[in-house]
Amino acid sequence: MANKPVRFGILGAAKIARKVCRAIADAPNATLSAIGSRSVEKASKFASDNGLSAEVKIYGSYEAVVDDPEIDAVYVPLPTSLHLRWAVVAAKKKKHLLLEKPVALNVAEFDEIAAACEGNGVQFMDGTMWMHHPRTPKISQFLSDADQFGQLKMVNSIYTYAADSEFIANDIRIKPDLDGLGALGDVGWYCIRSILFAADFQLPTTVLALPNPVLNESDVILSCGSSLFWDDGKVATFHCSFLSNLTMDTTAIGTNGTLNLNDFVIPYDEKEAYFFTSSKSRFNELATGWKPVSSKHVVPTELSQEARMVGEFSRLVKEIKEKGSKPEKKWPSISRKTQLVIDAVKASLDRGSKVVEVGQ
Amino acid sequence: MANKPVRFGILGAAKIARKVCRAIADAPNATLSAIGSRSVEKASKFASDNGLSAEVKIYGSYEAVVDDPEIDAVYVPLPTSLHLRWAVVAAKKKKHLLLEKPVALNVAEFDEIAAACEGNGVQFMDGTMWMHHPRTPKISQFLSDADQFGQLKMVNSIYTYAADSEFIANDIRIKPDLDGLGALGDVGWYCIRSILFAADFQLPTTVLALPNPVLNESDVILSCGSSLFWDDGKVATFHCSFLSNLTMDTTAIGTNGTLNLNDFVIPYDEKEAYFFTSSKSRFNELATGWKPVSSKHVVPTELSQEARMVGEFSRLVKEIKEKGSKPEKKWPSISRKTQLVIDAVKASLDRGSKVVEVGQ
Repeated sequence: MANKPVRFGILGAAKIARKVCRAIADAPNATLSAIGSRSVEKASKFASDNGLSAEVKIYGSYEAVVDDPEIDAVYVPLPTSLHLRWAVVAAKKKKHLLLEKPVALNVAEFDEIAAACEGNGVQFMDGTMWMHHPRTPKISQFLSDADQFGQLKMVNSIYTYAADSEFIANDIRIKPDLDGLGALGDVGWYCIRSILFAADFQLPTTVLALPNPVLNESDVILSCGSSLFWDDGKVATFHCSFLSNLTMDTTAIGTNGTLNLNDFVIPYDEKEAYFFTSSKSRFNELATGWKPVSSKHVVPTELSQEARMVGEFSRLVKEIKEKGSKPEKKWPSISRKTQLVIDAVKASLDRGSKVVEVGQ
Repeated sequence: MANKPVRFGILGAAKIARKVCRAIADAPNATLSAIGSRSVEKASKFASDNGLSAEVKIYGSYEAVVDDPEIDAVYVPLPTSLHLRWAVVAAKKKKHLLLEKPVALNVAEFDEIAAACEGNGVQFMDGTMWMHHPRTPKISQFLSDADQFGQLKMVNSIYTYAADSEFIANDIRIKPDLDGLGALGDVGWYCIRSILFAADFQLPTTVLALPNPVLNESDVILSCGSSLFWDDGKVATFHCSFLSNLTMDTTAIGTNGTLNLNDFVIPYDEKEAYFFTSSKSRFNELATGWKPVSSKHVVPTELSQEARMVGEFSRLVKEIKEKGSKPEKKWPSISRKTQLVIDAVKASLDRGSKVVEVGQ
């Protein structure tokens, strides 16, 4: 039994599902059992486009996937507005849940999802892949080093990409009935997660969304920014946009050290990622140069971050299935905190950039 | 006459003056003629500490320097609150003026300085050294490339350093009667300049200082941030602080390209500086990596950026002295714009983070 892989079903034939299909194939403890889409034709096309094994079951509905007793877990990359419904249905059918981000339209919806998972004893995890790259714990180690990094004072995070005109006109991520959070949910999610990660997941007390967000004609966010504040004086800012060249920068500054990342969500190179740190940086005697300068740290990885995500999720599922363990609460807790900040930023934007308290 | 170097006098024995002494020695068209401090002892000590030639005149007052008819230009690294007085006196004595930043406590003061310079036909330039590094025009070229960079959408700039307890207690940069602008004037100046540089010196329309700045007991800024807004939708943010590890990041993002700098004010290495650009960045087919990734551009320099600053200033002075040219207006114009933004950020902070229009 210990060698039985976790059997996955995928709900929806989204583009991101292609990447997760490969990740399920690469993860040693997972296997893809079924793909369900709104029609058998769409699901079949996805299967053939992605060279899926003939053993993968093709379903013409999402129901069929969650009803399949031979499936242990579902990966749900559906539009955000559909998360609540399908996540809850899946949990009630005792399917462990790997849910794409943003996890919900707001934290009230997420709490229903989390309650359904908890009530049915299934593992919840969101699809924030970079959390699982081996670079991430290395960075954590630096950020928690009281001597080399010190006390966190400031984080800035940017995630932008230049969507083409087809995306701006038709993508689900700019449709108010599908992904009402727009760029804030799609890429701002990652900025907020990186900020919370740097802050050791301590929630900010307040946020102030920056004025002048760019909205489309349906008032969906195409570009926005925000600042975040903690009671101990820490501050953070982020900027997320569909309207600028692909950029992924996170800078975290402590009293003694600085972290720089330029590809925090998806590393430039799948096989090795790097990050830059500097500690106790000073100028030389005449202030004509630095000593020390920043150092580059390279972190190779055999498995992609998404395969590691599937692997960690499957490990937890197997612990529950095979050893009767309880679901790991760290993952829904982190998702919830990210959603709480999203909600506060959205509320601040909706109130014309007033300071808003972050919920608990 | 064409080979006669510009004769400099320095007002004040500030630490930064040591670096500029060396720059004057290195610049081929400049020579140090005099150093004046509040006492002959202080000026003598500065001269011996810095191995100045015996030909450099030692004065026990600032007046003596500006009164010396054998001096063409003065470099003024005095505390900001003294700029107005001494800059105007120097201009009236027909001394060309290289003035440290921030140029004044506010733009009204700066306008008096600029008027005195214009009325007396002397060149004005502020001490923002990085403007003169050969890296700067290379970056300009990238930012103005409509294909490779496109239209500017966002700039983020950070300049922080970890001041020691002696600085926090006693440095002139945190004394309200000496440098009332604190970190905003000392390091925020550079952030604002880098943002204006990226925006081709187009002023933002409004600014919103971020809430919760850190002030000392005399209400001088130790750490603050701000956002800036242009009518065409461009946005910028900056963070400046005396309370965090030395960090100097500027990121500028256009519709087609991204610029990253990690040492924008003082390059890590005096002999060569670099910057990173990326253009039309995309993910690969499965979004498991980037193509293209960012490119590193290395710009060597024979002369330090401060020697190049002194050289360019001296070239302009010689044009005026030897050819009857008019002073170059670009430099006071850029200083004034930087000060206008400083003033707006300070006003926004003073009004509890209200949106403030930038003056003209």
